[in-house]
Amino acid sequence: MTTLRIQVINPNTSLAMTQTIGEAARMVASAGTEILSVCPSHGVPSIEGHFDEAIGAMGVLEQVTLGERAGVDGHIIACFGDPGLLAARELATGPVVGIAEAAMHMATLLATRFSIVTTLPRTVIIARHLLRQYGFEQHCQAVHAIDLPVLSLEDGTGFAQQKVRERCIQAKAQDNCGAIVLGCGGMANLARELSHELGIPVIDGVSAAVKMVEALLGLGLGTSKHGDLAKPNPKPLTGPYAIFNDPSVM
Amino acid sequence: MTTLRIQVINPNTSLAMTQTIGEAARMVASAGTEILSVCPSHGVPSIEGHFDEAIGAMGVLEQVTLGERAGVDGHIIACFGDPGLLAARELATGPVVGIAEAAMHMATLLATRFSIVTTLPRTVIIARHLLRQYGFEQHCQAVHAIDLPVLSLEDGTGFAQQKVRERCIQAKAQDNCGAIVLGCGGMANLARELSHELGIPVIDGVSAAVKMVEALLGLGLGTSKHGDLAKPNPKPLTGPYAIFNDPSVM
Amino acid sequence: MTTLRIQVINPNTSLAMTQTIGEAARMVASAGTEILSVCPSHGVPSIEGHFDEAIGAMGVLEQVTLGERAGVDGHIIACFGDPGLLAARELATGPVVGIAEAAMHMATLLATRFSIVTTLPRTVIIARHLLRQYGFEQHCQAVHAIDLPVLSLEDGTGFAQQKVRERCIQAKAQDNCGAIVLGCGGMANLARELSHELGIPVIDGVSAAVKMVEALLGLGLGTSKHGDLAKPNPKPLTGPYAIFNDPSVM
Amino acid sequence: MTTLRIQVINPNTSLAMTQTIGEAARMVASAGTEILSVCPSHGVPSIEGHFDEAIGAMGVLEQVTLGERAGVDGHIIACFGDPGLLAARELATGPVVGIAEAAMHMATLLATRFSIVTTLPRTVIIARHLLRQYGFEQHCQAVHAIDLPVLSLEDGTGFAQQKVRERCIQAKAQDNCGAIVLGCGGMANLARELSHELGIPVIDGVSAAVKMVEALLGLGLGTSKHGDLAKPNPKPLTGPYAIFNDPSVM
Amino acid sequence: MTTLRIQVINPNTSLAMTQTIGEAARMVASAGTEILSVCPSHGVPSIEGHFDEAIGAMGVLEQVTLGERAGVDGHIIACFGDPGLLAARELATGPVVGIAEAAMHMATLLATRFSIVTTLPRTVIIARHLLRQYGFEQHCQAVHAIDLPVLSLEDGTGFAQQKVRERCIQAKAQDNCGAIVLGCGGMANLARELSHELGIPVIDGVSAAVKMVEALLGLGLGTSKHGDLAKPNPKPLTGPYAIFNDPSVM
Amino acid sequence: MTTLRIQVINPNTSLAMTQTIGEAARMVASAGTEILSVCPSHGVPSIEGHFDEAIGAMGVLEQVTLGERAGVDGHIIACFGDPGLLAARELATGPVVGIAEAAMHMATLLATRFSIVTTLPRTVIIARHLLRQYGFEQHCQAVHAIDLPVLSLEDGTGFAQQKVRERCIQAKAQDNCGAIVLGCGGMANLARELSHELGIPVIDGVSAAVKMVEALLGLGLGTSKHGDLAKPNPKPLTGPYAIFNDPSVM
Repeated sequence: MTTLRIQVINPNTSLAMTQTIGEAARMVASAGTEILSVCPSHGVPSIEGHFDEAIGAMGVLEQVTLGERAGVDGHIIACFGDPGLLAARELATGPVVGIAEAAMHMATLLATRFSIVTTLPRTVIIARHLLRQYGFEQHCQAVHAIDLPVLSLEDGTGFAQQKVRERCIQAKAQDNCGAIVLGCGGMANLARELSHELGIPVIDGVSAAVKMVEALLGLGLGTSKHGDLAKPNPKPLTGPYAIFNDPSVM
Repeated sequence: MTTLRIQVINPNTSLAMTQTIGEAARMVASAGTEILSVCPSHGVPSIEGHFDEAIGAMGVLEQVTLGERAGVDGHIIACFGDPGLLAARELATGPVVGIAEAAMHMATLLATRFSIVTTLPRTVIIARHLLRQYGFEQHCQAVHAIDLPVLSLEDGTGFAQQKVRERCIQAKAQDNCGAIVLGCGGMANLARELSHELGIPVIDGVSAAVKMVEALLGLGLGTSKHGDLAKPNPKPLTGPYAIFNDPSVM
Repeated sequence: MTTLRIQVINPNTSLAMTQTIGEAARMVASAGTEILSVCPSHGVPSIEGHFDEAIGAMGVLEQVTLGERAGVDGHIIACFGDPGLLAARELATGPVVGIAEAAMHMATLLATRFSIVTTLPRTVIIARHLLRQYGFEQHCQAVHAIDLPVLSLEDGTGFAQQKVRERCIQAKAQDNCGAIVLGCGGMANLARELSHELGIPVIDGVSAAVKMVEALLGLGLGTSKHGDLAKPNPKPLTGPYAIFNDPSVM
Repeated sequence: MTTLRIQVINPNTSLAMTQTIGEAARMVASAGTEILSVCPSHGVPSIEGHFDEAIGAMGVLEQVTLGERAGVDGHIIACFGDPGLLAARELATGPVVGIAEAAMHMATLLATRFSIVTTLPRTVIIARHLLRQYGFEQHCQAVHAIDLPVLSLEDGTGFAQQKVRERCIQAKAQDNCGAIVLGCGGMANLARELSHELGIPVIDGVSAAVKMVEALLGLGLGTSKHGDLAKPNPKPLTGPYAIFNDPSVM
Repeated sequence: MTTLRIQVINPNTSLAMTQTIGEAARMVASAGTEILSVCPSHGVPSIEGHFDEAIGAMGVLEQVTLGERAGVDGHIIACFGDPGLLAARELATGPVVGIAEAAMHMATLLATRFSIVTTLPRTVIIARHLLRQYGFEQHCQAVHAIDLPVLSLEDGTGFAQQKVRERCIQAKAQDNCGAIVLGCGGMANLARELSHELGIPVIDGVSAAVKMVEALLGLGLGTSKHGDLAKPNPKPLTGPYAIFNDPSVM
Repeated sequence: MTTLRIQVINPNTSLAMTQTIGEAARMVASAGTEILSVCPSHGVPSIEGHFDEAIGAMGVLEQVTLGERAGVDGHIIACFGDPGLLAARELATGPVVGIAEAAMHMATLLATRFSIVTTLPRTVIIARHLLRQYGFEQHCQAVHAIDLPVLSLEDGTGFAQQKVRERCIQAKAQDNCGAIVLGCGGMANLARELSHELGIPVIDGVSAAVKMVEALLGLGLGTSKHGDLAKPNPKPLTGPYAIFNDPSVM
């Protein structure tokens, strides 16, 4: 059996979160899948808004570029805003899947309506825009924020985790939803336990994306290179962007 | 490694097509997956409209019921209209995925826009309704019909296959689409070759659904049993529907 | 004056409800209209979900087939989910109208926004899907469920009727709606009284559908037989479906 | 049998068209229905744009006011843009139905998709806006204009009628539509013959609206007077608008 | 510097409101802009529904006609329902902007979501229809009504103003909105102060429309005269509408 | 009169295009407006896809940050994909307007439908996504690509300009549109002449954005700092992103 190598890219620079994400990914990866969990060397320690996302996107593109050179088979963008998704698809030959995208897609296969539980209220708009872009506005009942920063999920107290749990219980009771999507890569390790406790599918995007990329690779499918996701038209880049220049033509 | 048993249900009674579908499913199934390909004993030989779909749906529900009793892990509805999908989800505890649904979902992960190539013109409306229900109206550029009946795909002449091929080539050239979805379970064996020839993802729903169900099962996720997809409220059924009565309570 | 014969099909097997529906239909039928109220011999005693609907759809198709052979002029599907609507249209030459459809259409002619009061919470999603399919998502303010099973409307206590009444009063007060649609065929006899008490149009689908079919017949219009609602392509059917085979060609 | 009096309001001042419309209405009216066909004393001779519509709307409101005082039971706005519809509903206690609205509603009951054939290209946008307002954007395949002014339908040569016919034939062949809606009150007398010739429902709004108003009246339903369609808040009006002042309070 | 002359049309006949609106317009007009504030001689003293709007639209069209003859450069429709907007555009060569339109457009440039605070509940539907027509349904979180008539804003007590203020404060706290649009021309003088007090953009349509028309004129742009906003096809008009006949051809 | 300083940011590094854009901006700027035209020191020479946009977004954010420190009053993102728009809004206190956004908004004020003429086919999807995000899907008839790279507009031959002109003429003739939006900052200098030649509004986003920002500033309005466009939560940034750290706290 050939080994598939899937690169899970944490777009922020938090090593703790990169580890949480990597573990969640490995937990569900198939026997023949190798998970590489990476994060950019420079960037934001957490992603909680559009500015953070723009920087996170650069980190994603850097890692996709390096991953492609190293021959990985597929990429996962492990931040719930899926920063840089379409740009990353231009760079990649294999599949690129965002964790928000993966979780939302799967939720619609298991329930007629789902709700989302995310971190800060200011990220709600990002989830809303993704729902619209992916086509799932009608399938989402509500987007809830626990009003704690992303990194509170890594502070070791479990307080944020408890808030997530409470909000999921509330959402199940009040939203008329059949499934819940966890709206942050840092919640990746909570899904299985919450699914058990609540008795409904609670979906984490990291693990969902791993299985989705495996599924696509299992079909021999990669990102379309015809049309608007073709490789970027080659251009000389300078400064911090020189990394993207094709080394074979320099 | 536990073996997963996935039941691929051809909603029509064509044994040739059931075989085509089963082979396509087995071709992509993971090592640990057992594919059971089944079709109803009574019904329509092919599904080419809403009436055919209503009967196909009964066949699907019959097979889901039998499959659940036999302890299968997941179900696939292998007709491009996904007949009986939500009803089947009520009956099942594991995941149930339609082949139109699976193919459309995957297409949106690989290209910004996809087109569909189906059989008879009268099935176009069915695809349109599904696109709307699943949220992918914006992602679909066009739905093409080759204007041949479903069973022409099983007549051994290859004529229908040639028409599918030509229409895919046309769609790539004219539709501004990055991927093509094959709109009939009977086209399941064409996807891989056409992907190669056209150089874009050509997606068959049968194989897509197999990987999607494997993905969901790999995450330990099944259909939500909370809310509107819960088991049907038990009611005494008679005549041809007696098969659905719970044998344990009779 | 020629007599028009309109067949009101209760898709479930409850004789009490078939009678309630038939009476509601006759109450509003024009002098020249004969109402035939029928229900399938086998099926579900009430329809409260997608599985029930799939079986109800078969009952509808059976009765439409028999009605067509008997030369009825039009058909009404008297269950608020309009099960089997498009399939029934394929079978019929005259008009086929669902009661949800009829009530929703009429509500939009009388008020800028309407609300729906239905039975079990699990049927809310069915109403939501119909609103989307018919184009009335924007016109509906809310869908309420009284959380009682359909057959409680036939238990003779009047308890369910009282709950419907209370929910309608609430909806008028809170929803910013100008009309209310009753979301179950079993509520057919409540509309006129509630309209009076509440002082707003409270619309029952059964009587609405009778007038709608009369309207279409009065214009000499039937279901389009060109394109995707043409008669099903003839196919040999076996088992419980043999009833659909054209007797003239056997 | 009580006689119902339905007022068919031609919003323009063309007496020829008022007569065509009145005849079409009477042709389909039930035995117990009296049709009053009226038009405003001042206004535009034909309606072919937004400005014409604004003036037509005043004519509609004048006639609705007079009709209400005379105790008519319902109103029809017999211009395909349905000018003044919501304002007229505020004034009326009975139902008010526009001919575009009536025809579009009925078309969706008979076919999965319909096309519209109208007069001047500049009225296409009016039809488009109505489709959006009524919820039927998805149900309409195309809006065609014969590129002749409205009054060419009254010039006695039959040339415009021939163009309508040709465009309907084209639409059936090319649009993948199952029904056609005639987009002008002046085409009212063409529907029945074209339905015959084309073999699909060709729907005229005037006759459709008559049957729709009869249907609503047959159910005892009128315009909701609760909320945003309640009678206008009374205000002293002067000049040409003095006609709207309530004579009982002057 | 050439002086631009912008006509601000209050569609109702309230002179006090015409003055409020004129002052708000002048407050923000550029040095080179002359503001003409006008209202129709006959009509409704305030606009609080669809009937009022239909009459207001006639006033707008009268003033646009007079303004065009007097050579004004652009027009503003200073009532939050933008009555007669498309008809006015047919009559004008320069730009015509409604105050609802202007405020909504600007709000989407400053915040991801806005809320609206209007007067009577029955006008909420008018705002909802405009949001849909202009494309901003997704950008609007809520439409609130203070439940006071329009003219209470001119009664000198400040009570209505206080209610507006309270509702804006509430909206900011509860709606998850970043900006507020004031939903009545009579609130024009409140925006700047409320913006200060609340610390978010509170947008008045009158001043917004002045700057929008200045912007369009600054680019040398006027209403498109190609297609469906071309001058109305000339027709002889009588009675109160004779004013619209082209004096140069009489 | 206070001078307003508006910064026009070309997100690519082409100095020629930065100059074209700056000139177009100055051409329409009001007397009291100073235009600063800038571009990033590093980045892509032209923006023709999602990857280019991600890099362009970083350039935008860099320049917005520098501009804010220098006290400019507003910002314009002068690339038709509006890269980094929401992130830039988080950074700015004054208004930030994209040129696609400005042009699209203005087009909807002048015509019922507009078309877009852009450069490479692969940028069509970017325009489509913006139309959806801004709410203008219904207002856009077509998006055309001249199939030439962005920088061909700066090659001095005038060939690309001629292709733009031809495509605009075609669009007017075939699209049923009343206005055209030029889909590239490099076309900024063509709008006025094409408007003249075609006799319909041809709108360039650069000049449109200048007037839009002036309009917002004239009302004293800036980006909402309440909610999801508030300043980014401060975080220590390293490497190429250190430039974004607040110098006052270092």
